[in-house]
Amino acid sequence: MHQNTTNQAAKIILTGDRPTGPLHLGHYVGSLRNRVRYQRDYRQFIIIADAQALTDNMNDPDKVRRNMIEVALDYLAVGIDPTLSTIFIQSQVPELAELSFYYLNLVTVARLERNPTVKEEIRQRGFERDLPAGFLTYPASQAADITAFKASLVPVGADQVPMIEQTNEIVRRLNFIAGREVLVETAALVPEVSRLPGIDGKAKMSKSLNNAINLSATADEVTAAVKKIYTDPLHLRVEDPGHIEGNVAFTYLDAFDRDQTGLQEMKAHYQRGGLGDSVVKKRLEACLQDLLTPMRTRREEFSKDRAYVMELLKQGTQKAREVAARTTDEVKAALGLSYF
Amino acid sequence: MHQNTTNQAAKIILTGDRPTGPLHLGHYVGSLRNRVRYQRDYRQFIIIADAQALTDNMNDPDKVRRNMIEVALDYLAVGIDPTLSTIFIQSQVPELAELSFYYLNLVTVARLERNPTVKEEIRQRGFERDLPAGFLTYPASQAADITAFKASLVPVGADQVPMIEQTNEIVRRLNFIAGREVLVETAALVPEVSRLPGIDGKAKMSKSLNNAINLSATADEVTAAVKKIYTDPLHLRVEDPGHIEGNVAFTYLDAFDRDQTGLQEMKAHYQRGGLGDSVVKKRLEACLQDLLTPMRTRREEFSKDRAYVMELLKQGTQKAREVAARTTDEVKAALGLSYF
Repeated sequence: MHQNTTNQAAKIILTGDRPTGPLHLGHYVGSLRNRVRYQRDYRQFIIIADAQALTDNMNDPDKVRRNMIEVALDYLAVGIDPTLSTIFIQSQVPELAELSFYYLNLVTVARLERNPTVKEEIRQRGFERDLPAGFLTYPASQAADITAFKASLVPVGADQVPMIEQTNEIVRRLNFIAGREVLVETAALVPEVSRLPGIDGKAKMSKSLNNAINLSATADEVTAAVKKIYTDPLHLRVEDPGHIEGNVAFTYLDAFDRDQTGLQEMKAHYQRGGLGDSVVKKRLEACLQDLLTPMRTRREEFSKDRAYVMELLKQGTQKAREVAARTTDEVKAALGLSYF
Repeated sequence: MHQNTTNQAAKIILTGDRPTGPLHLGHYVGSLRNRVRYQRDYRQFIIIADAQALTDNMNDPDKVRRNMIEVALDYLAVGIDPTLSTIFIQSQVPELAELSFYYLNLVTVARLERNPTVKEEIRQRGFERDLPAGFLTYPASQAADITAFKASLVPVGADQVPMIEQTNEIVRRLNFIAGREVLVETAALVPEVSRLPGIDGKAKMSKSLNNAINLSATADEVTAAVKKIYTDPLHLRVEDPGHIEGNVAFTYLDAFDRDQTGLQEMKAHYQRGGLGDSVVKKRLEACLQDLLTPMRTRREEFSKDRAYVMELLKQGTQKAREVAARTTDEVKAALGLSYF
């Protein structure tokens, strides 16, 4: 799956989220659970990208602000340990904005317009002529986030790989101007499972599609969601053979069931016929409650002391800022911008 | 000429230069001499825009670096007094980059592409498809430079007025989002004489056209430049009537001769006929040497102690940074980006 070198401990990861809504099972499968794994073996920086979230939320900055702490609570809930991972707030590391500012000179407008990820996102948002300059240029900002920490690995979905290429172009251009290796090239770390379908069977779980199970869902919400889950519309009677493919209940079980042997037996039974959806859903519900209950408990614990959570974020941000400031100094020195 | 209110003393001016070459008589007439006047009546911030200079000099950052101190020496030479004006280095006030970064979300790509000043500059530089993103977006950076100091006046040539409009659009948009007056609208202060022709008679004195007299020119260079100066090509014999219009010698005398009565007499004589170019040039040379000799002396004085000049810049930058940091904090708070 990912690179496994003897020097793995030294490798630096940059990852994170835009705080625009609660994190859900899709985020967990696609990235959060990997972060819990990575944090012991890598030096992991986790960015709460509030400034990036503003590039298409400038009309509702309060949404970003409110979700900042919610995302932090989600991180702590899933088991990201702030003593192992450095969790920080993008806007509170001004060096990232400063680096972006210089990187804008290292990328052409035409190149940004050609970026497939940005192109698709512009289309989705219907921006066209109203495209904010900050949205078109956000790959430069992302390059700043990655390079500031000299991250050599960035866990991303396959659709984000062009962003990594864009970052490396900036890295090479800056190093060329500097005449030495100031910045470090990075690599996409694409997970095996990067996407979970929605409970309605649509390809992607997403808050805006209203088909998500949030990590902060209550036990009742989980029960209700499992009830509504898309299974096999052709499986009308218990005795009929059922289909596994496209059956979201089984997709989720694949992702979350710890007893994969038992799951294989259940799948065979379902395909033979004689197994009702309610049994499958019962198993899934147990799995999800098992997964989410300890998260909810941890979330509630941390939620009681938000000042402590803010203190953790402050410490993480302070640590991140020291690293980012060092890189920014190096970049500015390479550009001749250090006088005092 | 410019606004003259009773509250003039409180007004803030932002002005400055891109450090890409030595300043010349054109700069002096168009802006520097006004700065010397303004500095007693206004709070004047003078930016050495090294970061902006990089937007189209990323392949030669060293040129920008070298010229930074030269521009500072030119300022001191013409009589800008660092105890009255705040001279600072753009790149050393990272808050300006940070503000730009957020302003990018307040302006659309289409609006930047429509900006007449930027359009013309892109044409002049032949950028087209290779247009660096930082160049297209530099109006956002200029808006940051102006608004960071809450400058209500920006001395610019007529061609730069669209940049001021762009700044005010950003100001209004930010204030609208904030729901209050965080930023201050600004006004262009267009001088009567904003442009001096080159010694070759071309409309604009410019380093790249090689038709400039630098403020740091030696006495011999001044003599040589005056010798080459474009006068009246139809004025072949001393006894012929000469033309004043388009005659650069007279244009310069208009700008620099302290004895305007004597100058009017000379003009009349020239137009009647019987006055040779050499007499006119002699008068001009005396004027220019009178103007430039004390500048050269001051420049040489400061040039001997560059560490002291850097110390002055450091102090100015420190002062500017305090002001810019306050504004940046206000802008970020308005966007909900203050947590700690």
